Amino acid sequence: MFTCDNKRMEDKITTFAKFGDAGHGGITRYSLSPEAHQARDYFVKRMEAIGATIECDDMANMYATIPGSEPGLKRIVMASHADSVKNGGNYDGILGVIAGMEVLETVVAENIPHRHPLTAMIWTNEEGSLYPPAMMSSGVVCYDYLPADISKKFKKENMLASVSVLDKTTTFGDALNASPFKGEEKNRLSKDKYEAMFELHIEQGPILEDAGNEIGVVTCVLGMFNYRIRFYGQSDHAGTTPMHKRQDALFAAAQALCYLHEEIDKLGRPELVYTTGEIVCHPNVHTVIPDMIDFSIDVRHEDPELRAKVLEIVKSLEQKEWARCKCEVELAWQRDTVYFDKELVGYVKESADELGTKNQLINSGAGHDAQFASYMMPTTMIFVPSKDGHSHCEPEFTTVEECTKGASVLLNAVLKTDKK
Amino acid sequence: MFTCDNKRMEDKITTFAKFGDAGHGGITRYSLSPEAHQARDYFVKRMEAIGATIECDDMANMYATIPGSEPGLKRIVMASHADSVKNGGNYDGILGVIAGMEVLETVVAENIPHRHPLTAMIWTNEEGSLYPPAMMSSGVVCYDYLPADISKKFKKENMLASVSVLDKTTTFGDALNASPFKGEEKNRLSKDKYEAMFELHIEQGPILEDAGNEIGVVTCVLGMFNYRIRFYGQSDHAGTTPMHKRQDALFAAAQALCYLHEEIDKLGRPELVYTTGEIVCHPNVHTVIPDMIDFSIDVRHEDPELRAKVLEIVKSLEQKEWARCKCEVELAWQRDTVYFDKELVGYVKESADELGTKNQLINSGAGHDAQFASYMMPTTMIFVPSKDGHSHCEPEFTTVEECTKGASVLLNAVLKTDKK
Repeated sequence: MFTCDNKRMEDKITTFAKFGDAGHGGITRYSLSPEAHQARDYFVKRMEAIGATIECDDMANMYATIPGSEPGLKRIVMASHADSVKNGGNYDGILGVIAGMEVLETVVAENIPHRHPLTAMIWTNEEGSLYPPAMMSSGVVCYDYLPADISKKFKKENMLASVSVLDKTTTFGDALNASPFKGEEKNRLSKDKYEAMFELHIEQGPILEDAGNEIGVVTCVLGMFNYRIRFYGQSDHAGTTPMHKRQDALFAAAQALCYLHEEIDKLGRPELVYTTGEIVCHPNVHTVIPDMIDFSIDVRHEDPELRAKVLEIVKSLEQKEWARCKCEVELAWQRDTVYFDKELVGYVKESADELGTKNQLINSGAGHDAQFASYMMPTTMIFVPSKDGHSHCEPEFTTVEECTKGASVLLNAVLKTDKK
Repeated sequence: MFTCDNKRMEDKITTFAKFGDAGHGGITRYSLSPEAHQARDYFVKRMEAIGATIECDDMANMYATIPGSEPGLKRIVMASHADSVKNGGNYDGILGVIAGMEVLETVVAENIPHRHPLTAMIWTNEEGSLYPPAMMSSGVVCYDYLPADISKKFKKENMLASVSVLDKTTTFGDALNASPFKGEEKNRLSKDKYEAMFELHIEQGPILEDAGNEIGVVTCVLGMFNYRIRFYGQSDHAGTTPMHKRQDALFAAAQALCYLHEEIDKLGRPELVYTTGEIVCHPNVHTVIPDMIDFSIDVRHEDPELRAKVLEIVKSLEQKEWARCKCEVELAWQRDTVYFDKELVGYVKESADELGTKNQLINSGAGHDAQFASYMMPTTMIFVPSKDGHSHCEPEFTTVEECTKGASVLLNAVLKTDKK
C-alpha cells in the first residue's frame, strides 16, 4: 500500500485557502474570478514542477497529466472543482483537486509504477454561484450522454449566455473569453481518451463523523425532485381588511409547509431528506397582505417508489383549501438515482480496508460533477468527514489527517484501476 | 346645504389619473417624480384659475388658499397626498386633494360666504414608497407635537438622507432640492396660522361597502404595534443533512406563524386585524437549509388592553422550542389609538346626515397624515367606500357619485367649522 503525505497535503490546503480568503476562515472564489485564476496558476505551478503536461478545454476545464509506462492506454482522471459558493469553506471542491494533485506528486516522488497516464483535473464552475447553473461544465462536456431531460439544461450556447448574478451584465461566455485558461474542445474529457474518473469530496453531512468513520465509499448520488409550490391570494391593506375577508398567501404557505412536514414524516423514513430553502413573497411589505408566495421543495431518496409517495403528498396540496388561496405545484428539476461503477466502488472499498481506515458505504445527497461523468465513463467518489456536517459555509472543516487518508485511498484505488 | 359637482369631480379624477398612468388602470406616481410634478402643475393651474394663492414649504408641501371675509382668522385646511405606491390606484391620497380643490371651486363658483381663509393642501411623500418612511412630511411638520417615540423617526435631517429604494443613490434631499415646489419653512402648516385640518380618503377596506354605506365618519386611527420575529437556525446542505439534525429556521417560522394565528384567534375578537406581510429568508437558496428567517407582525385594534394580550402571545414565542431554532422578537414600531377632534367629528356626522347620505362611524386601520396633524391641531377624516375593499393596487375604485358625496360632506363640515 502507498500513502500520501500529510505535510504536502497541509501545504496545499493552506495555500489554496489564500486564494479568495474572505478574512474570517473561509473563501469566496467564484469560477473564472481573479481568485480562481490565482488558484489555477498555483495548480499549474505545482503540476509543472512534477513534469505534468497542462491542457485546457473550451470550457476552461484544466488537465494536468503525467505519462504512464504503457503506450496507447487511456488516462485515469481525478477531478473536482476549485470554485466556491459565496462565503464558502476551504474544502468543498478544492480538496478533490488537491487530492488529485497529491496522488500525482506521490506517484512522481515515490516513482510508483503505473501503466496508464494519470490526470489531475479542475472542473470549471461546479457551484454555478456567479453564473448558474451548478455543474455547468460537466453538463456541457457530458452533454451527449445525459438523459434528455437533464441535458436540455446544459446546451453550451445557453451556458455561455448565463448572466452574472452580481452585475447582471457579464455573461459566463465573457468571463470564459477573458480567461487565460480557455482552451480547445479537443482537450475535453472524453470516452476515447479517458478510462475512468474519480472524485474525492467532503461528505457535506454528519454521517461519517457521527459513525466515527474516516472514509465514505460512495455508491450513488440520490435521486431527487425539486418542485415550486405557489399560493395566489389577494393583496390588501393590513390595517383595513377584516380577517374573514383575507386571502393571505403567506398564511396559506405556512399552513401548507406544516402540513407537508406532518404528512411526509408519517411515511416513517428517517433517511429521507426534504427541504424548503427558498421562499419568495409578493409584495413583501409589512403593511400589505401577501398575494403570492412561491417556495421550493427539494426531496431526496435513493428509492423512486418512496419519492413517488412524497410527490403524491406535494401534489395533493393543489386539491386542498389554504386560507382561500389557490395553490399550484410545478416541477422545477428532477433526477433518478445515479449509481457509480461497481468495479471502481469495489477498488475504493478494498483500498480503504487495506489502508486500515474506518470506512462505510454511503450515498451522496448532493450533486457532483462525478454524477454527470458517470453517464460517460466508469466513475466513482470518495468522501471524507465534514466536521459537524457543515458545508457551503465558513466553518467547513476536515482534519489534514483525514484529508490525507482520503488521498491515500484515492491513490490506491487509482492504482488498482491502473492494474486492471 | 351646499353640494359639490359630479362633472367637475369626474374631470379632476380623470385628469389626475393621467399623471403616472401605468397603462393598465392604475398609476405609479412616486413623490417628487416627474409624474408627481405634473400632478402638482395641474393643481396649481386649477387653483390659480379660481384666484387661490399658492405657497410651498421646505418639505414641498403645497397650499392653495382663498381668503375669508373676516380678517385675522386662521385657515381651515383640507389636505391629502398626491403620491402613490408602485402600481397603485387612482384614489388613494389624490382623492383627498381633489376633494379639497372641489370644495374651493364650489365655494368660489357658488360664492359661498365664509369667514376663514380656506386651503387645499398636498402633503409630500405620504406613501414613502420611493423614499421611506411613510407620512414623512407630516412627521417633519408636526415633529414638535408628536410623542417622542414617534417623532424620533422623523428628524428632518434623517428624512433628507433617505435613499431611493430604486437607484439606492438619490436621496429625498436631492429630489427636494431639484423640485420646483420646494419653498420656505415659514409656509408650513402651523398652529398659529391654521384652525383645523380635514382629510378625505378612501376607506381602503370593505366595511362601508359591505354595510351599504356611502360615508364613513372617522373617529380614530387604530392603535397598533409592529414587531419583527426572527428565527436563527443552521445553514446546511439540503441533500446531506439528516432531518433530525436540522435547525431549519423556515420550518420554525411556519410553525410559529400557524401558532400565532391559532392563539390570537382564540381571543375571539373578529374586529382585531393582524398581518405578516414581509418575510426575509437567508440564504434563500433551494438547496440550503435556511439559517435565518425574519418576519413582520402588524397588529391593530382600538383597545390597548387587547393589543397587550396579543403582544403577550407574540412575546411568548421566545420561550418556546421551534425546530431547535432560537427565536427573538423585537419592537419595530407602535402607536396608541389617535382619536380625532370630537367637535369636527360631530360636524362631519351632521353634514353626512343633513345631506341624506347613508353613513356610519368608522375607525381607520391605516395611518394617514391626519393622524400626525391631530397632535398639532383639531383634525378629522372622512371616508368614502373602496370597491371590494381594495387599495394600494390598480383595481382601487370609488364611483364619481360617491366621491362627490364625500366632497359635499367635506364642504359642509368645513362651513360648520367656519361658522363656529
